[in-house]
Amino acid sequence: MDHQQNKKKKMIIDTDPGIDDAMAIFVALQSPEVEVIGLTTIYGNVYTSLATRNALHLLEIAGRTDIPVAEGSHVTITKGTKLRVADFVHGVDGLGNLNFPPPKGTPIKETAAEFLVRQAKLCPGEITVVALGPLTNIALAIELDPDFCKNIGQIALLGGAFSVNGNVNPAAEANIFGDPDAADIVFTSGADILAVGINVTHQVIMTDSDRDLLEQSDGKFAKYMCKILDVYYSYHHESYNTKGVYLHDPTTLLVAINPSLVTCMEGVVRVQTTGITRGLTIFFNKQKRFAEVNEWTGKPTVKVAVTVDAPTIHKLVMDRLMNS
Amino acid sequence: MDHQQNKKKKMIIDTDPGIDDAMAIFVALQSPEVEVIGLTTIYGNVYTSLATRNALHLLEIAGRTDIPVAEGSHVTITKGTKLRVADFVHGVDGLGNLNFPPPKGTPIKETAAEFLVRQAKLCPGEITVVALGPLTNIALAIELDPDFCKNIGQIALLGGAFSVNGNVNPAAEANIFGDPDAADIVFTSGADILAVGINVTHQVIMTDSDRDLLEQSDGKFAKYMCKILDVYYSYHHESYNTKGVYLHDPTTLLVAINPSLVTCMEGVVRVQTTGITRGLTIFFNKQKRFAEVNEWTGKPTVKVAVTVDAPTIHKLVMDRLMNS
Repeated sequence: MDHQQNKKKKMIIDTDPGIDDAMAIFVALQSPEVEVIGLTTIYGNVYTSLATRNALHLLEIAGRTDIPVAEGSHVTITKGTKLRVADFVHGVDGLGNLNFPPPKGTPIKETAAEFLVRQAKLCPGEITVVALGPLTNIALAIELDPDFCKNIGQIALLGGAFSVNGNVNPAAEANIFGDPDAADIVFTSGADILAVGINVTHQVIMTDSDRDLLEQSDGKFAKYMCKILDVYYSYHHESYNTKGVYLHDPTTLLVAINPSLVTCMEGVVRVQTTGITRGLTIFFNKQKRFAEVNEWTGKPTVKVAVTVDAPTIHKLVMDRLMNS
Repeated sequence: MDHQQNKKKKMIIDTDPGIDDAMAIFVALQSPEVEVIGLTTIYGNVYTSLATRNALHLLEIAGRTDIPVAEGSHVTITKGTKLRVADFVHGVDGLGNLNFPPPKGTPIKETAAEFLVRQAKLCPGEITVVALGPLTNIALAIELDPDFCKNIGQIALLGGAFSVNGNVNPAAEANIFGDPDAADIVFTSGADILAVGINVTHQVIMTDSDRDLLEQSDGKFAKYMCKILDVYYSYHHESYNTKGVYLHDPTTLLVAINPSLVTCMEGVVRVQTTGITRGLTIFFNKQKRFAEVNEWTGKPTVKVAVTVDAPTIHKLVMDRLMNS
């Protein structure tokens, strides 16, 4: 490994591919600033076994079978919770119902949590985790190793709906809703967390005409994405009044690479784990000194993205997909 | 009753006096646009029996013992919930620890809910309720008479923290926190609801120098308020970084008189009734068509104030207290 590579940001992508996960993974592999040292898989857009299959498939498409895939949890951290799988957003195969052949590769023997813990220990403070699905694997890593929060670098996560409605229901965003208990463990763990919620990612849109540009490009990732984007566009056209799709995962990935693409507020985030607002994230802005102790009192703070440089992120995604 | 009086807006104030409740009641009595036809009492700033005593006392101060006081519920709608009483905001007597002598008057025999139901039936569509405390009495009126929601005019309520932190804890505003189950009944009842949350009332401030103006005034209500405002100012100085006090109740009262003092969004509001965000209000903005049925689906909409004409409200409060 030469000097240039040593300066790259080491990154583990925890992912449930997923159409925008595929895009994020491709953008990561095209990003000179980062070295992807592994993918870990999780349920969310699909079940975990299919997420693993898709992760291996995407690395084969990219010619990057050198990158290990560690399979993550098949269930929420409080076992027995019924999983919500968003196949109506990404297709039943998670990649646009294209029915790709199975990958040749297999995941490594370690679980996602074990892989995360070991890598964090190997390179203390140097690894960025980009968490693009429910936070079960990260919470399991925290439970597995008391030093994980200290050893890991930043955890940039796609999750939460801060001061806006959710995308599962008016209260909850999908990744937090997927495992609210795990999310609350992660938010209050003391790790260096940067949360990118849909209040931010809904500002970063790939339009219908952007898709035409991808179609016309010779980039291999652009061409691949065009094949699988149909379902994702249809879902957005039906569900939102926006002529395009939200770039949730690529935005989070690029923010993990360069946090200055967002501005953040810092405070305590707690997650509601029961009732009609299960999966809701509540950020405390510290503007009031409460007379009474509450569930936010004394908990570690996290960074929550509030504004985003959408044009720059949009351009980076388009360029990196087309110049591939 | 002459023609002029017939044109006045009939108003019932549901109140837990409370320092800013006292201010709201005085402003109401000074408002030529309204006829206060009764006060109903509720726990919140104080226990209900003290709220009744204070309501009677304030009407005696105002020389308006012609206005009936109906005592409301002493407990939340789901009996057994421990009450939270904000004596650290308003003093243990609710009126600034001035130790006023007991009032001469007594409440009427009807309960608050019975009074609300009967008055709504007497003048269908004509009565505005201004709800300044937890919503137990309103929910009981809804349960008591299936036609109440149809018979009552608008219910303008001080409650909720929409897209901002609460004032009991980061999730919940005090009035909704006081009886979340009652609040959820009211919000989903189909009545004409205008919710004024602390996202709005925190924009309407009586400053430290405003208080000096009240001190210098000859208005009897201004003079009375100056006697009791100390505790309320101290609480705000300690809890918030603002040189003044929030005019929660007077704002809601004036919005009930003239709803054009706020702009509103319209949508479904649900209240979280359990867990760490108990008392949280979640407004659905209808921007997304959700794939799945959720707890907001098909419920009646309400109006939620989002912007406020703070200078006009501020001037009305000052003028009406000083010209008394």
